[in-house]
Amino acid sequence: MQLTLIGIGTGNPEHLTLQAIRAINAQDMILIPRKGAGKADLAELRRAICDEVLTNPTTRIVEFDLPVRDEATPDYRQRVDDWHDAIALAWVNAMGGTPVGKVALLVWGDPSLYDSTLRIAARLDPAPQIEVIPGITSLQALTAAHAIPINDIGAPFVVTTGRRLRDGGWPVGVDTLAIMLDGACAFQTLPPEGVHIWWGGYVGMKEQITCEGPLAEVSARIIQMRAEARESHGWIMDIYILRKV
Amino acid sequence: MQLTLIGIGTGNPEHLTLQAIRAINAQDMILIPRKGAGKADLAELRRAICDEVLTNPTTRIVEFDLPVRDEATPDYRQRVDDWHDAIALAWVNAMGGTPVGKVALLVWGDPSLYDSTLRIAARLDPAPQIEVIPGITSLQALTAAHAIPINDIGAPFVVTTGRRLRDGGWPVGVDTLAIMLDGACAFQTLPPEGVHIWWGGYVGMKEQITCEGPLAEVSARIIQMRAEARESHGWIMDIYILRKV
Repeated sequence: MQLTLIGIGTGNPEHLTLQAIRAINAQDMILIPRKGAGKADLAELRRAICDEVLTNPTTRIVEFDLPVRDEATPDYRQRVDDWHDAIALAWVNAMGGTPVGKVALLVWGDPSLYDSTLRIAARLDPAPQIEVIPGITSLQALTAAHAIPINDIGAPFVVTTGRRLRDGGWPVGVDTLAIMLDGACAFQTLPPEGVHIWWGGYVGMKEQITCEGPLAEVSARIIQMRAEARESHGWIMDIYILRKV
Repeated sequence: MQLTLIGIGTGNPEHLTLQAIRAINAQDMILIPRKGAGKADLAELRRAICDEVLTNPTTRIVEFDLPVRDEATPDYRQRVDDWHDAIALAWVNAMGGTPVGKVALLVWGDPSLYDSTLRIAARLDPAPQIEVIPGITSLQALTAAHAIPINDIGAPFVVTTGRRLRDGGWPVGVDTLAIMLDGACAFQTLPPEGVHIWWGGYVGMKEQITCEGPLAEVSARIIQMRAEARESHGWIMDIYILRKV
């Protein structure tokens, strides 16, 4: 069995690469996870992508219900591990129990960046041959939306999470941070002086919203924009870059 | 005037996104820089991309000679600044002196990541309206080639340069580094114990070569592979990920 993880970008169907389109059409089966109504499961986006670019009549699209993470498991790593086990099992069931041929998953963004599809794939037994097709990440959609480089000339940057920023503060030795997976606007836990923020919600999608400026001036506005957008859409994915200036 | 910076990925013409193809066809002019015979100027790749996807008969392709950096200027930042000034002037000359309409540059990788096109564009006067189309980066091509995620679950990573790694050692507080712009295998300056490396040259291109393993075991082999490939092709671009395991 060959399992192909196809990066599809961040919700703009035009983020698809020619390589991704070719890979979609090379499959026997494409698995599409469903999270349930009203959730940001992006099943609709994945269906729309297949509708638009899939021309191979032998490729089957199979939907499956994504298992829910058991929030009763106290340990975070254990909770994630158990959940990934359950997802791997759901894949196998969706494949009909005996995985053969070429199967693909359409991965939001890029399979390398804060995505667990590769880790879930590692649970399959026998191990499939894995192929990865890179896709546009939300970090790139953010920098494109603001038309900024992420790094100063020859300078480093850190990519990290809202949780790490909140718990650990600004990492030493770098002036630029990209923050992902932040459900709670961790930037408000920083001393805002001398920090510039470039923020975006739903980056790359038609719902895209952005805000940038000195953190001291725009922090409250971003928190409000985020809350209103989340209320209005029922979900939000956002990302931001912080730079000491 | 509108200036569009179009990320084209890392040398695989199939890295092009549908958005990039649409943007290429929306231009009055596409500027292609030439570095001279035998250099990694990628002019041939850019021409091939235009040959393949440009269907708008009104789009002009204009080539220009990229100015050479004056290595006699002792200060690094000054040397780069002067060079960027010269490139901006070369753009204006290539555009015929009075930039109007829609002009694009095809940017290797993504315009946000260790690329100076946005900084050069900031020198144009009057300032053009800037549009950025994201593209697949060499970092993503590397992780795809090795079928690995860049980060551990919820963990941060640093993207930095060979020079920084050599001069500053392993940054504190992170277990994963992505190293770009390294002309001298800076990984050999690290204590190799407990470090795994995923290395790639020409990632995404048909010439792609990769090597991975414990740094202590594969360091010498990578140095040799890199030297031989550089000798054989006349140039090399490589990138790697280091992880404490």
